[in-house]
Amino acid sequence: MTSVSARPGELARVAAPDEGISVDELKLAARNHGMPLEALRYDVTPPGLHYLLVHYDIPYVDPTSWRLPITGAVEHPLELDLAALRTRPRVTHTVTLECAGNGRARFLPRPVSQPWLDEAVGTAEWTGTPLAPILAEAGLAPDAVDVVFTGHDHGTERGVEQDYARSLSVPDVMDEDVLLVYEMNGAPLPPQHGAPVRLIAPGWYGMAHVKWLRDIEVVREPFTGFQNATAYRLKQDADDPGEPVTRIRPKALMVPPGFPDFQTRRRIVDTGDVPLFGRAWSGTGTVVRVEISTDGGTSWREAELGPQPGPYAWRSWRLTWQASAPGDYELCVRATDERGEAQPVDQPWNRQGMANNMAQRVDVTVR
Amino acid sequence: MTSVSARPGELARVAAPDEGISVDELKLAARNHGMPLEALRYDVTPPGLHYLLVHYDIPYVDPTSWRLPITGAVEHPLELDLAALRTRPRVTHTVTLECAGNGRARFLPRPVSQPWLDEAVGTAEWTGTPLAPILAEAGLAPDAVDVVFTGHDHGTERGVEQDYARSLSVPDVMDEDVLLVYEMNGAPLPPQHGAPVRLIAPGWYGMAHVKWLRDIEVVREPFTGFQNATAYRLKQDADDPGEPVTRIRPKALMVPPGFPDFQTRRRIVDTGDVPLFGRAWSGTGTVVRVEISTDGGTSWREAELGPQPGPYAWRSWRLTWQASAPGDYELCVRATDERGEAQPVDQPWNRQGMANNMAQRVDVTVR
Repeated sequence: MTSVSARPGELARVAAPDEGISVDELKLAARNHGMPLEALRYDVTPPGLHYLLVHYDIPYVDPTSWRLPITGAVEHPLELDLAALRTRPRVTHTVTLECAGNGRARFLPRPVSQPWLDEAVGTAEWTGTPLAPILAEAGLAPDAVDVVFTGHDHGTERGVEQDYARSLSVPDVMDEDVLLVYEMNGAPLPPQHGAPVRLIAPGWYGMAHVKWLRDIEVVREPFTGFQNATAYRLKQDADDPGEPVTRIRPKALMVPPGFPDFQTRRRIVDTGDVPLFGRAWSGTGTVVRVEISTDGGTSWREAELGPQPGPYAWRSWRLTWQASAPGDYELCVRATDERGEAQPVDQPWNRQGMANNMAQRVDVTVR
Repeated sequence: MTSVSARPGELARVAAPDEGISVDELKLAARNHGMPLEALRYDVTPPGLHYLLVHYDIPYVDPTSWRLPITGAVEHPLELDLAALRTRPRVTHTVTLECAGNGRARFLPRPVSQPWLDEAVGTAEWTGTPLAPILAEAGLAPDAVDVVFTGHDHGTERGVEQDYARSLSVPDVMDEDVLLVYEMNGAPLPPQHGAPVRLIAPGWYGMAHVKWLRDIEVVREPFTGFQNATAYRLKQDADDPGEPVTRIRPKALMVPPGFPDFQTRRRIVDTGDVPLFGRAWSGTGTVVRVEISTDGGTSWREAELGPQPGPYAWRSWRLTWQASAPGDYELCVRATDERGEAQPVDQPWNRQGMANNMAQRVDVTVR
């Protein structure tokens, strides 16, 4: 089985500086998909255009026999079925989700994993019931530390066989906006987005929103499962325990203007006024500023912001670019949130390619 | 603009034998997406899992102002709107679609374009109205040769600026099963699949099913647009005019058994009986045989076929594999259709990476 696994827990490879994408990375890219950036025009991403990242396979879970046990450090263990969830208070949040690995393939050198460029994002209306009152009914033990969410999806990752599992701390999980979700955009959850029930933890990168929920366990010690302790951490090297990846860093993206060349996706626009627009978001507070550069990041102009449609959804922005002279241009966009955190122009490299919010760059030819 | 274009009509590059996937190819792979193969379990592919190939950008077309002119070599030019289409006879066909470039990245050397492996396929219920009676009402001229379908999607491709356009011959287009489609799986067409109206030409590779229809023109000379005369042809080299890509060649795919390793997608199964199952289809007739090899194509066993659910939809198949000895295996599957055409085990290489129906190979470790 040497062909299957690295040594347990070992970090994935980093590509050589001039190394192309491998067939293994392409296998991931052909299954998982980003949101074509022209879909930034929609407040809510139409079904099928929202980004999708599945670690292993999409499991088939029968909704009629599905049960969700809530066990561990609780006074009254519970078991819920779909009907029980649907009779509880119904809440809808519009939430922008972004994969923690978004931007990984823009890092140089490139950590080898799902090779996202800019597109691993989307916004949906998620409907379900708040989790905090359910945990309150179960009665968390006073010394409860973490709550572990385990999915039905099963695989190996760097030699570690596992059901996908992620924890949130008790304070994070008792946030009133954390939901057990059974609908996406008004329809039952599709298979690929976690049917029949998934977690939505607004503001967090995608890894926290566990899909195909199988059980919830409250634990008295910090959870040290693979996805918390090894995978989703900001490490500089293999010996670095790293900081955990948590909430979404501020980011803005633009709809690439004009029209594309098929093979290169380079943009072509005509001279004149070019409307630039897109969306911006942050998991740590409202976006308060979006800036555009048309000279590769040397100078910046502030865009006009649209209304903030809720605490967890992206915000629109727009700016008219006077493209008066034919030639090649590199457009950039960057966001700043209310805490003053701004997107970097240089890469915030880390060993696992996580949480890359380096400013987007779009190559444009004005003719 | 040298960075935008090859010389007009020039063929795309072929990668060196050991060359990784380029960033340009990754840009396409991150936007367009295949169907995760575990979705072969569904008769009809759930929304969002059907493969998607968009040459340029997904255009935004307002359905309320959308009109479809039918002009050229007709007695009575017509213009239809969405309401007019919806009052005409309503027909639903369940159709398996496959991208003509599916399997391109399995070719060695690899033609550089959208780098599909095996996943560019899906089956949907397409609802619309037959096109032939509309063309009959318009009155085709006796010397009409081709019917040209043009979409709202615009871009450059190998130096040729174009709206995506493809023709079908008059006999092909008068097939009673060719539809102008406004619904997919019972819902209005989603933006990425051609809203508000697309063509569905059952049995043909994906390039024929023009999305975001803008107009239909009947012509008296064979159509020589880029997508017919240059792109979708089976060429051996740059000087070869090539044969046109037309109907889908026979193919079978399996749901990869067991569970995957994240980084390699290699499968792990336990010793014992392993159910193998999947789907098979052909655009030139019913699939009559599916065979499985568990030794890389040396020996073959015949699978059990499910019912044929209609003339244009894939057919299920299954076989139990007695995986008695631990070790590494290469599984293969191949289909044969009623015309006796069987999938090749060796690659049917061509210069543009078209219509590759080489047998699927799945690496499995039995433990």
